[in-house]
Amino acid sequence: MGKIRLYIDHPFVPGQAVPLDAAQAHYLSGVMRQGPGADIEVFNGRDGAWTARIEAVGKRGGAVALIAAAAPQQDPPDLWLLFAPIKKARTDFIVEKAAELGAARIQPVQTDHTNAERIRQDRLQAHAIEAAEQCGGTFVPPVADLAPLARLLDGWDPARRILWADEALAGQADTLAALPRGPWAILIGPEGGFSEAERRRLAAMDCVTRIGLGPRILRADTAAVAALTLWQAALGDW
Amino acid sequence: MGKIRLYIDHPFVPGQAVPLDAAQAHYLSGVMRQGPGADIEVFNGRDGAWTARIEAVGKRGGAVALIAAAAPQQDPPDLWLLFAPIKKARTDFIVEKAAELGAARIQPVQTDHTNAERIRQDRLQAHAIEAAEQCGGTFVPPVADLAPLARLLDGWDPARRILWADEALAGQADTLAALPRGPWAILIGPEGGFSEAERRRLAAMDCVTRIGLGPRILRADTAAVAALTLWQAALGDW
Repeated sequence: MGKIRLYIDHPFVPGQAVPLDAAQAHYLSGVMRQGPGADIEVFNGRDGAWTARIEAVGKRGGAVALIAAAAPQQDPPDLWLLFAPIKKARTDFIVEKAAELGAARIQPVQTDHTNAERIRQDRLQAHAIEAAEQCGGTFVPPVADLAPLARLLDGWDPARRILWADEALAGQADTLAALPRGPWAILIGPEGGFSEAERRRLAAMDCVTRIGLGPRILRADTAAVAALTLWQAALGDW
Repeated sequence: MGKIRLYIDHPFVPGQAVPLDAAQAHYLSGVMRQGPGADIEVFNGRDGAWTARIEAVGKRGGAVALIAAAAPQQDPPDLWLLFAPIKKARTDFIVEKAAELGAARIQPVQTDHTNAERIRQDRLQAHAIEAAEQCGGTFVPPVADLAPLARLLDGWDPARRILWADEALAGQADTLAALPRGPWAILIGPEGGFSEAERRRLAAMDCVTRIGLGPRILRADTAAVAALTLWQAALGDW
């Protein structure tokens, strides 16, 4: 990769300095050994990528100056990922891969068979930011706080279709290209699968399409990456 | 998952005991707290899955008796995964996911921009075994030792087509379904991409098809999972 990229959640106005917080300043000077005058790439998730010059870095923060636009803003398609949190490393992984593969929003859900009562939203959001920094992205998907699946479905906008990766459907996944484009959400179940009540409810919703992911049982993190890939290839921007 | 599954690399002959080595015996008795009389599921990668009863477990090994066939042998399609090893955790991850997604053989390759001089083949093979154990599989893809890409291409059988995931081709991936079925290998490059010499060589080979994996840059591990998914959905057994 080489180039240092930094996500800065601050408006970008050409000619105005963009402030760095203490952690960003420490990363640039303490970790990456960069000082005033060095050029990096910055993005704020909405104004594309910019070449920026470090003006100051200190213990309490710093600032960069925007030099020139480097890449236009590129937003992903309107795809959400709903998944039940699993073990820490695999949950981190799902968030990283969803950011890389172009999810627009990441929504952890509590299902009948989910063990997690809470998540570290800030830590997951940091993973999504790091993935965008590492992979040259200009967009960072927001990671929502954990919400009960039942409550989300209560208020679900039927205009957003749901692609339900159903582990009980060990079939083919070749029908995606025939589905309508537009807003979608991918739903990945927990390791123990969905409960019977959840399965009945999902099956009864008009906006839900079930897909199988092959004859082998996939872990939840694998299923998330596979479903994001198939959606992007058939209905997204690949 | 619940059920204890164990890969045992030994012929299965109904009526004959299957020996456990010391590590397997320790896993069953020390880790999983199972003793003689307990039923587990075993597979050897070629004879399907069997219900087996523990006959003996001790410090030096043990034995199980085959009780009844539990699932037929299910081999994946004839798909190899060639990839350049990256950081340890991500290499482990690629092997795990390739086993889950149904690769028939995993071949780490040394490219012009690969840093790895050697891999721990035994450790990677153990990851492939664990993935099969965890995911209910009956097949374990062999993990080959690291080999130079150039040497592999020198002796390449042109009957095995190569799907080259080319990070320079930020295009669509929608042409896979039109490709012939049969033996394939997916080739994933290192973080720094392929060298110019490698790119020229691959482009000149008749059996090579390039695909892009979307407009965002993907890490090598993400690219491996995405390419395996697209291949399985279009040309494999999904």
